[in-house]
Amino acid sequence: MTAAILSTGTELTRGELVNTNSQWLSEQLTSLGFTVVECTAVADDQAHIIDALNRLAKQTRIVICTGGLGPTTDDLARESAAAAVGADLICDETVLEAIKARFKSLGRTMAQSNTKQAFFPSSAVVLPNPAGTAPGFAMTIQNALCFFLPGVPREMKDIFELHVKSRIRELAERTSYQVHLQTFGLTESNMADQIAQLKLEESFGENTTPSVTIGYRAHFPVIELKVLARASDEKEARIVADRIAEKIRERLGSYVFGGRNDTFAEHLGRVLREKRLTLAIAESCTGGLVGKLVTDVPGSSDYLLLDTVTYSNQAKGAILGVDEELIAQKAAVSVEVASAMAEGVLRVAGSDIAVAITGIAGPAGGTDEKPVGTVCFAVATRATPTKTVTRKLPGNRDYVRVLSAYIAMKMVVEAAQLL
Amino acid sequence: MTAAILSTGTELTRGELVNTNSQWLSEQLTSLGFTVVECTAVADDQAHIIDALNRLAKQTRIVICTGGLGPTTDDLARESAAAAVGADLICDETVLEAIKARFKSLGRTMAQSNTKQAFFPSSAVVLPNPAGTAPGFAMTIQNALCFFLPGVPREMKDIFELHVKSRIRELAERTSYQVHLQTFGLTESNMADQIAQLKLEESFGENTTPSVTIGYRAHFPVIELKVLARASDEKEARIVADRIAEKIRERLGSYVFGGRNDTFAEHLGRVLREKRLTLAIAESCTGGLVGKLVTDVPGSSDYLLLDTVTYSNQAKGAILGVDEELIAQKAAVSVEVASAMAEGVLRVAGSDIAVAITGIAGPAGGTDEKPVGTVCFAVATRATPTKTVTRKLPGNRDYVRVLSAYIAMKMVVEAAQLL
Repeated sequence: MTAAILSTGTELTRGELVNTNSQWLSEQLTSLGFTVVECTAVADDQAHIIDALNRLAKQTRIVICTGGLGPTTDDLARESAAAAVGADLICDETVLEAIKARFKSLGRTMAQSNTKQAFFPSSAVVLPNPAGTAPGFAMTIQNALCFFLPGVPREMKDIFELHVKSRIRELAERTSYQVHLQTFGLTESNMADQIAQLKLEESFGENTTPSVTIGYRAHFPVIELKVLARASDEKEARIVADRIAEKIRERLGSYVFGGRNDTFAEHLGRVLREKRLTLAIAESCTGGLVGKLVTDVPGSSDYLLLDTVTYSNQAKGAILGVDEELIAQKAAVSVEVASAMAEGVLRVAGSDIAVAITGIAGPAGGTDEKPVGTVCFAVATRATPTKTVTRKLPGNRDYVRVLSAYIAMKMVVEAAQLL
Repeated sequence: MTAAILSTGTELTRGELVNTNSQWLSEQLTSLGFTVVECTAVADDQAHIIDALNRLAKQTRIVICTGGLGPTTDDLARESAAAAVGADLICDETVLEAIKARFKSLGRTMAQSNTKQAFFPSSAVVLPNPAGTAPGFAMTIQNALCFFLPGVPREMKDIFELHVKSRIRELAERTSYQVHLQTFGLTESNMADQIAQLKLEESFGENTTPSVTIGYRAHFPVIELKVLARASDEKEARIVADRIAEKIRERLGSYVFGGRNDTFAEHLGRVLREKRLTLAIAESCTGGLVGKLVTDVPGSSDYLLLDTVTYSNQAKGAILGVDEELIAQKAAVSVEVASAMAEGVLRVAGSDIAVAITGIAGPAGGTDEKPVGTVCFAVATRATPTKTVTRKLPGNRDYVRVLSAYIAMKMVVEAAQLL
């Protein structure tokens, strides 16, 4: 069952916007069991839109078209769809009243140009838009069921979820299932080697169903591992995918921290909550990034007591009680200062665990002995000796900071699990 | 002069990757003066790739194709390009030696599969790849000059900059110039109203050249304003765009903080550096985000002395000296506590300016009187009375946090400019 995506908008062909709609829709259609053969973006030009619509509707069974439903003259989806099948545009009075009512509720009068948004090709079915003025619509063009959705991502997703999914779900034969595992701390090739040693293929044989494909997707510094199983139906595929994912999870151990859409900071939050532990952070080169990531999670105020970013040595002394002489002797980027920072912030905040990061994120500040990318970490708790680590991290300022933040969070998780 | 972009890769049609290559190339081609008529992504399927290549090469003068240059069986760019013109693939011995040498320098032997990367259609010109094993190539298909580049963004960009730009620059007639202004603090419609009042069109007349188009692009919470001028040549267009941009800049005043690619944190850094001022930050609901943004700028350790994230009331007392009774009386989210935090962090850090943020980012924690989105700000300096602001910000947790961070930075800039 094939599908195609057509995005319209000159902002796309001019490169003013990354086409995230196309990625989201491809992912949705793929997970529903469709094979997306093409994703195309064309400018707001009626002849181009009609050509692309006809071409894609001839080749595939489902076409999802986004954009061009606004009230202005460069919004051409309705006209193009009608022209593709030689239909007229007719006014849907119910939609027109709804648009008028919407403007009235906002204390405004509907502009004449908005009238356009109530016109649809005569053969179309209207798809209501819960959030905006512009409804979508569905109609058949050539062999394909075509859906026309707004370009605004939130509205596009709402209409897809509410009105498109249920209409197309039964068209695709779902014979696959994918499990997602989030990992941090191993390289792709290291994971691939470890998974190869599991000899998964022996369970199934190369040319028989069910079959399993392992994929990787990096969102630095997290690598998502995808276990895709194909079988005679979705239920069987799911059983296989779950079983294989479980084997991989066992093998990779604590490098796997979650499933689809899980973040490392959520994982950290779950561990701290489970153990009823509180956290304090002392940052230097990460500049607040660890705190930002930890507090991205709603409710993190339950366990995060304090984060300090002590860039200056004076602040390291005044806030964390780090001895100026220690800094003079050992340098600000040293495991000794990292320890003193962690122990200092633990004491000041009265938390159960504290982590400290001090390093050289670059581009300046490196020396022969401590090049850019040198970062010292320390984790202190009320119960165990302070643990320190020095790492020489590759990459530019952004990479060093992001990777440092994840290493710090991972050290907190490991310390918490021992308490 | 028309152009098209063809991205190949099943990871794109399956929605596993956002197609940033396509956006980057569209932007480059547009700024070189080309009209990009279509951006298409197809799966790793030779028949589809050949169809798309022939179709786009017939319609346009330039086609940029990315992906499919790797060593594996699903890398099909070479085969597809050769098939499109009925050419053979022949081995380029120089490239083969370079690939072998590259492996040798890494202490490894070249795998047989890499041999493939030295084969090119007989009519192609090789485009060396400074970073990877896979060179690109250029050849004519139908009416179009077609460039084949790797899918890895870094390598694609390098080859484009080094070998494609110079070859295509002279093909396009550049008659336009665009100036970018970064703004924060005004809505798009408010800016549009103010710009309308400048009556820019009176300077030029509607149907005559030069003409000017004003565009907007939101990267929440920053709105980029684009002034695109078209004239008889690029030089004239630039003079017009610069003049109009200057008029707009005057009108919008301090809401404009920079030009293309400038960030607000860089603007803040410039102001602090110019005035030789130092900064301290006391965050609560933003959780380290202000510090993160400020320290995204290399060299920010010159002016940022300290950032504290005092989530707990105990920490607000211990670190910043905020009176527990004040918190009990006025609540943690209040202008009084914001003032005490700003004055506390100013004192502890010994900085010239300090800013404090305390608020309810949600989703929980709101009350009738102080709903989610209520955020209190304070800026303290050594020379002027502490200034406070309370805002009720719309949107979800992310929006509230990001917008709060920008409001705080803006308050610092305003305070610094008065010192």
